[in-house]
Amino acid sequence: MVKLEKIEYKPISVRDLLIEIKDLSELMIDLAYSAALFNSKELAGEVLELEERVDTLVYLINMNVMIAVRDAQDAELLVGVSVVASAADKISNASADIASLVLKDIGIHPIVRQAFEKAEEHLIRVKIAQNSILAGKLLDKLELAAKIGVDVIAIRRNKQWMINPKSEKLQKGDILIVRGAPHGIEEMKGVAEGTIMKLEE
Amino acid sequence: MVKLEKIEYKPISVRDLLIEIKDLSELMIDLAYSAALFNSKELAGEVLELEERVDTLVYLINMNVMIAVRDAQDAELLVGVSVVASAADKISNASADIASLVLKDIGIHPIVRQAFEKAEEHLIRVKIAQNSILAGKLLDKLELAAKIGVDVIAIRRNKQWMINPKSEKLQKGDILIVRGAPHGIEEMKGVAEGTIMKLEE
Repeated sequence: MVKLEKIEYKPISVRDLLIEIKDLSELMIDLAYSAALFNSKELAGEVLELEERVDTLVYLINMNVMIAVRDAQDAELLVGVSVVASAADKISNASADIASLVLKDIGIHPIVRQAFEKAEEHLIRVKIAQNSILAGKLLDKLELAAKIGVDVIAIRRNKQWMINPKSEKLQKGDILIVRGAPHGIEEMKGVAEGTIMKLEE
Repeated sequence: MVKLEKIEYKPISVRDLLIEIKDLSELMIDLAYSAALFNSKELAGEVLELEERVDTLVYLINMNVMIAVRDAQDAELLVGVSVVASAADKISNASADIASLVLKDIGIHPIVRQAFEKAEEHLIRVKIAQNSILAGKLLDKLELAAKIGVDVIAIRRNKQWMINPKSEKLQKGDILIVRGAPHGIEEMKGVAEGTIMKLEE
């Protein structure tokens, strides 16, 4: 059985929570489609990790909204926030449904694959190995977009997600979600896994 | 009361239906966020139009899948198609929830707006006027991306949607969903509404 942590009320900025939940739900759709397209259990697993985080965010947003509301006017102003959180939750659940297809070994029918094929851009999940040249580097200093045509669209460090990271310092063990053209993606995989020791331009 | 049309079984390519439903559901999220960001009832209305289309597609996909399945093996192969259709439906419903906030005049709280602000890119909805220079032109020949930095990401002609149109011939009355930087968006609006009679590069 899954061990669930108790979610306690914390006074957090609802704005920050809302930005996070929206970014996560969008990322989950892309990850779920890619998981189905490449039959990748690793990507599918990340979607389920994110679903758990989104559930937590929904609780935190609703608790903070309820505490903030003192009268009818507050309630009118803030009811929209709960609607948006709940919409992000639905999107997250829909993505998890697709990811579960992959994890349950239900074959992905070719017509599903065709629906998910998006131009030339691909997503992968890579883990930074101990000997990778990425460990300890600042993400923006690596100039990955200019050099090999890829973007790191998310980093997971244990349970913490960073979406659209900019100047983050990468660490060994970080899980990177990388988007780009096939060639760059392959190179990025090698660099993260420590089999390529230099970024070829 | 809304007058609903009877949906009859038609033997249609499930692949085409699935591609359409996935593209529409993704478009709806963008439209719903933009509708909330700009408090645009026009964009919100388009989201609800699309929701109706997505509902129809779900019925058609499920009917076609059920008819195609003859034995357990078929069922295993095709159950994933229904899951994907249902996921797109959930995404569509979530988008409609957000659009309804706008249509019901529930104020969009500034923190919702902040969550929806996406870099510099904006979406608008414009209708091609009778005297617009766009009427009768082939979309790709207009070179809108090169000339004014905008993309037509969808066209609605009455009840029919064209997503990511390429070489479509534009007609007066077409509703265009246009994405781009604010300046180009403004110019595109003028050109579609017939107040600007030339594409300025």
